[in-house]
Amino acid sequence: MNHIEVCFSPALYADYENKEAIVVVTDILRASSAIVTAFMNGVERLIPVGTLEEAKAYKNQGYMVAAERDGIVRDFADFGNSPYNFSADRVHGKEIVYSTTNGTRAIHLASSGHEVLIGAYLNLGALADYIRSCNRDLLILCAGWKNKFNLEDTLFAGALAGLVLADDRFTTICDSTHGAIDLYNLAKKDMMGYIEKVAQRHRLKKNGLDDVIAYCHEIDKTTMIPVFRKKSITLING
Amino acid sequence: MNHIEVCFSPALYADYENKEAIVVVTDILRASSAIVTAFMNGVERLIPVGTLEEAKAYKNQGYMVAAERDGIVRDFADFGNSPYNFSADRVHGKEIVYSTTNGTRAIHLASSGHEVLIGAYLNLGALADYIRSCNRDLLILCAGWKNKFNLEDTLFAGALAGLVLADDRFTTICDSTHGAIDLYNLAKKDMMGYIEKVAQRHRLKKNGLDDVIAYCHEIDKTTMIPVFRKKSITLING
Repeated sequence: MNHIEVCFSPALYADYENKEAIVVVTDILRASSAIVTAFMNGVERLIPVGTLEEAKAYKNQGYMVAAERDGIVRDFADFGNSPYNFSADRVHGKEIVYSTTNGTRAIHLASSGHEVLIGAYLNLGALADYIRSCNRDLLILCAGWKNKFNLEDTLFAGALAGLVLADDRFTTICDSTHGAIDLYNLAKKDMMGYIEKVAQRHRLKKNGLDDVIAYCHEIDKTTMIPVFRKKSITLING
Repeated sequence: MNHIEVCFSPALYADYENKEAIVVVTDILRASSAIVTAFMNGVERLIPVGTLEEAKAYKNQGYMVAAERDGIVRDFADFGNSPYNFSADRVHGKEIVYSTTNGTRAIHLASSGHEVLIGAYLNLGALADYIRSCNRDLLILCAGWKNKFNLEDTLFAGALAGLVLADDRFTTICDSTHGAIDLYNLAKKDMMGYIEKVAQRHRLKKNGLDDVIAYCHEIDKTTMIPVFRKKSITLING
């Protein structure tokens, strides 16, 4: 039997770590939604880096760089973290270096797992199908907000866990998985209404960046699955 | 305006720490329910200690000691962590040293707050009234299970946060508080049914210790509020 667990914060990762598991990293508002969008628009490769110093060093080597902290684009960067920034005219065929407040750190942490996938609503169904086909444990790592629990990643974790659990080779005895599924089932009836209370929505709104919230909750816009291997993100099924 | 936050794990405490807040520590199955019960049965003082070595040292000094790990009473201890162990004939008028897997560590962590209270369903209403009367921030610290999120503490946090938020001098922009409230409102319709899925229920059952689950979810059996001050727990309103 394959087990599903959900880890609500990178700060708890050591307690959930499972080297045999497929690890899905999610940061719905906005990094994982932006990464999936970049591949939908033909990016060749993304290089996630944890620190702004690393991002700046790549910029000095001539790379295109997307970098933000707390939702704000850094001055040395070409653009920030909105999925809308990763348009086809900008990213098609390119290698892009990427650094965000929470998401890129979570991706590096997760690399102790068997395989690291990037999950968003945009590729939810394809991701669930692929995970079921792998027939091994699943750990969903929520990027959270500066180590804190966040609702938008939790809801996505619940959506994904629910789909994978429909396959009877998967089970869970993990309280955070049960909690995430119950919250998703509550929220999905009116997702945009529910998301009103999410702290990150208020942060984005304050900076005029909340135009992407509905887009980041659109389900199954693509079957592409980004995978993190050897320090860069490419497509598992490109 | 006073803010409410919920911290789902002692491992996240540093990210939620608020020195101005009332901190309520909860470990529903079973430490905080046992502590409240001990005071209902007339205990004079509880001394929570983090390690079994400390507990053993107190035992050698002649103290009565309650100590368990993973639900199992330690051989040097007088009894373990079940609320039923703290009966009046055993605890009335006594000072008792207490060490558990998750709860006692959480109590010590919380002592950076303005005041540390012990919360359980047994004293829920009195606790909410007292917190409202203090008119300052509230942080609810869930003891969890070995740093992991657990549902039973989360549901209690939701119950308490919901009661305190009914006072319009309190507000929250904390995602874990919203999540906890929503899960409590979902679970409370059939609490014993909901608790079926909780991992700790299965752990207790395996060891024949699940007889206390219904008792630990009984609401408002007392108005007593245990408080942790100067390394020991007494009653704030005894």
